[in-house]
Amino acid sequence: MRMYDIIMEKRNDGELSKEEIDFFIEGYTKGDIPDYQVSALMMAIYFRKMTDRETLALTMAMANSGDMLDLSEINGIKVDKHSTGGVGDKTSLALTPMVAACGIPVAKMSGRGLGHTGGTIDKLESFPGFSTALTRAQFISNVNRVGIAIMGQTADLAPADKKLYALRDVTATVDNMSLIASSIMSKKLAAGADAIVLDVKTGSGAFMKAEADAKALAEEMVRLGWNAGRNTVAVISDMDQPLGYAVGNALEVKEAIETLKGNGPEDFVELCLTLGSRMLIAGGKAADTEEAFRKLREVIEDGSALKKFADFVEAQGGDPRAVYDTGLLPEAPIIHEVKSPAEGYISHIACDEVGICSLILGGGRETKESDIDLSVGIVLRKKVGDYVKKGDSLAVIHANCAQKLAEAEKRYLNACTIAAEEPVRRPLIRGIITV
Amino acid sequence: MRMYDIIMEKRNDGELSKEEIDFFIEGYTKGDIPDYQVSALMMAIYFRKMTDRETLALTMAMANSGDMLDLSEINGIKVDKHSTGGVGDKTSLALTPMVAACGIPVAKMSGRGLGHTGGTIDKLESFPGFSTALTRAQFISNVNRVGIAIMGQTADLAPADKKLYALRDVTATVDNMSLIASSIMSKKLAAGADAIVLDVKTGSGAFMKAEADAKALAEEMVRLGWNAGRNTVAVISDMDQPLGYAVGNALEVKEAIETLKGNGPEDFVELCLTLGSRMLIAGGKAADTEEAFRKLREVIEDGSALKKFADFVEAQGGDPRAVYDTGLLPEAPIIHEVKSPAEGYISHIACDEVGICSLILGGGRETKESDIDLSVGIVLRKKVGDYVKKGDSLAVIHANCAQKLAEAEKRYLNACTIAAEEPVRRPLIRGIITV
Repeated sequence: MRMYDIIMEKRNDGELSKEEIDFFIEGYTKGDIPDYQVSALMMAIYFRKMTDRETLALTMAMANSGDMLDLSEINGIKVDKHSTGGVGDKTSLALTPMVAACGIPVAKMSGRGLGHTGGTIDKLESFPGFSTALTRAQFISNVNRVGIAIMGQTADLAPADKKLYALRDVTATVDNMSLIASSIMSKKLAAGADAIVLDVKTGSGAFMKAEADAKALAEEMVRLGWNAGRNTVAVISDMDQPLGYAVGNALEVKEAIETLKGNGPEDFVELCLTLGSRMLIAGGKAADTEEAFRKLREVIEDGSALKKFADFVEAQGGDPRAVYDTGLLPEAPIIHEVKSPAEGYISHIACDEVGICSLILGGGRETKESDIDLSVGIVLRKKVGDYVKKGDSLAVIHANCAQKLAEAEKRYLNACTIAAEEPVRRPLIRGIITV
Repeated sequence: MRMYDIIMEKRNDGELSKEEIDFFIEGYTKGDIPDYQVSALMMAIYFRKMTDRETLALTMAMANSGDMLDLSEINGIKVDKHSTGGVGDKTSLALTPMVAACGIPVAKMSGRGLGHTGGTIDKLESFPGFSTALTRAQFISNVNRVGIAIMGQTADLAPADKKLYALRDVTATVDNMSLIASSIMSKKLAAGADAIVLDVKTGSGAFMKAEADAKALAEEMVRLGWNAGRNTVAVISDMDQPLGYAVGNALEVKEAIETLKGNGPEDFVELCLTLGSRMLIAGGKAADTEEAFRKLREVIEDGSALKKFADFVEAQGGDPRAVYDTGLLPEAPIIHEVKSPAEGYISHIACDEVGICSLILGGGRETKESDIDLSVGIVLRKKVGDYVKKGDSLAVIHANCAQKLAEAEKRYLNACTIAAEEPVRRPLIRGIITV
């Protein structure tokens, strides 16, 4: 078998066999097949697309290219949640203890943030002492004992995907539905969960700006998941403005804790309940969404989700008192109100720009090596559809430096559009894709 | 300027500017732009194609990427001839002395053969002592004194093309009309001739199998030549069976000498006259094809073309007596007749396969480092349309080893199709493309 023939076949609109895809992924992972042949194949795939069979074969080949986690020592049905990423997306922080309190074991490998979207591990490190450096044995035992464990990515999950994504990123071959879906799903399959709930974002702050694209990606991933033998469901949710109000590591932790106390922002609560209900159903803890919603609301009302969160933080070395007294979490030295320069309706908040404000303030990483300040960020006061008068508070910036504050404030004001007309409100949940 | 944006622009069907193409070729030649980005761009070009403006910019950028030969010290209009390559194509050997005898200065850089098609330099080395290792000064002075000089490729002509072609060759991005045309023409432009006559082959033994493709390539190259300020014309000629009868280095030299003596095969003579007439017109030595044909026939009849060839061989260190007594050229120890296994019309001769027979016999290079035997090869006795009886001679194989002979004979018999019906004869000259 020769890589040249594989490129030629795809270029000429043929369908690659499982054997050909295995050959390519194995050879590329080992370094036997050079980048320049793979980038040519990726561009051919961009133009010719991939069939369902090809996409499944690629996903499985990448999933099998490194470690495949074995979570069989964990009791119960393991349900994983994955978000395609957005600004202010602290869903894992609140949702994890909610579903764990309902009896779903959560065994998660998480990454750090890069660019203008934050990472779950960074956010959790707001708790003094918290660590994700668990051994495999601690990880398994914490899940069985506490119900939740989150580990840094120590295992070599889907290395072929890592290498392929880095190449696609510099050769303008990222935006193909099959390639995006197989990239996400290969990692999820390798991570070993029995069921997968996907949160596919759409809107200006999402990777998939257009709703039709988000829907197509969700369908592709759900199909892939089922074809790989995993119960998979996708929720399509809005990311045209930040989720909830808080953007920034410790600020998002505080908002997640408020949500677990029953004081969460309406949109964020709705998303947690929607995703959580799908997790409960997949995990056999609820028969339908109605039962699932009721159970999820109960664990908030009776405080068991909040306690679950505190237990989890403590089990990983963090100070659990900060869950009850968020004053113990990092706080920025400068707190500044952004005032509205005009009167009218907030008609648009450029989502990416809000993420960049947090990055400028020091809350995100520009490169993998950057240090981040967990205390800084921005808390919105008004969201799309709200009416403001001139001088009203639009947001509160938490900063560690006057100069960065000034830059972030200017940027935030540019990100907000104020108009005379009341905008049409976009519903948060755009659809649910099941098999 | 970023290579990423250039790939993206082409992928999205945009037209690249001259500046972008210059940036890419300069960066790639220097090694600043990696292969994997260039192969992705090549595949995007395969799908999106290139406009005339882009193709011209690419051709000029590659021509300018290395040395540009200056032939201004040579008197007269320099006319270069280029063939897209075929089996038994000894045209340069006969045509060069013909046009030189008519007063066209021939200053040629030539390469060696690779694969199943031979190279002009290899063929000329059949003359004991012949060398193409000329200094620039010798080269210029030989052209002015003798009328012909052929030099090995010492100058660094169009290095960007060399690098790009090697990459396209392993990434299934060779067959795009603009890329093929710019590859050929960039080298021709760098080689410094004032006028260019192209021999574009079509048929089973040609790179462009389909006549429509050959025509499109010819049109593209002629347009490029004129846009680059060179008088350019293309002849489209048949390569569905070997040209003439002889295939193999010294065997082809003998056939070329026979042609200069007035005893050439009909098809080969026709091609030499057609290409030669275009060279004479471009070089200002004939007003029209009628005058050109007459002059070319004259230099054969009066022996001046043959003498020109002998002078040229002598000027480059070869033994000129071999021009008059071809028994002095290398001769193979084994000479074997291939007998027809059946009666009927020769309906097809798989052209590539005949080239491979010569390669098997030791007359071609499998890799750049291979040694070749100049004496071996195959001389056809029958060509397409000829009628044969069982046992008639189909061809004569010149070999240096019984085992290779057996293999070549078997292969040659498989390459010939004998049928009851007389085949339709394909005319040799399929068209002439002028501006």
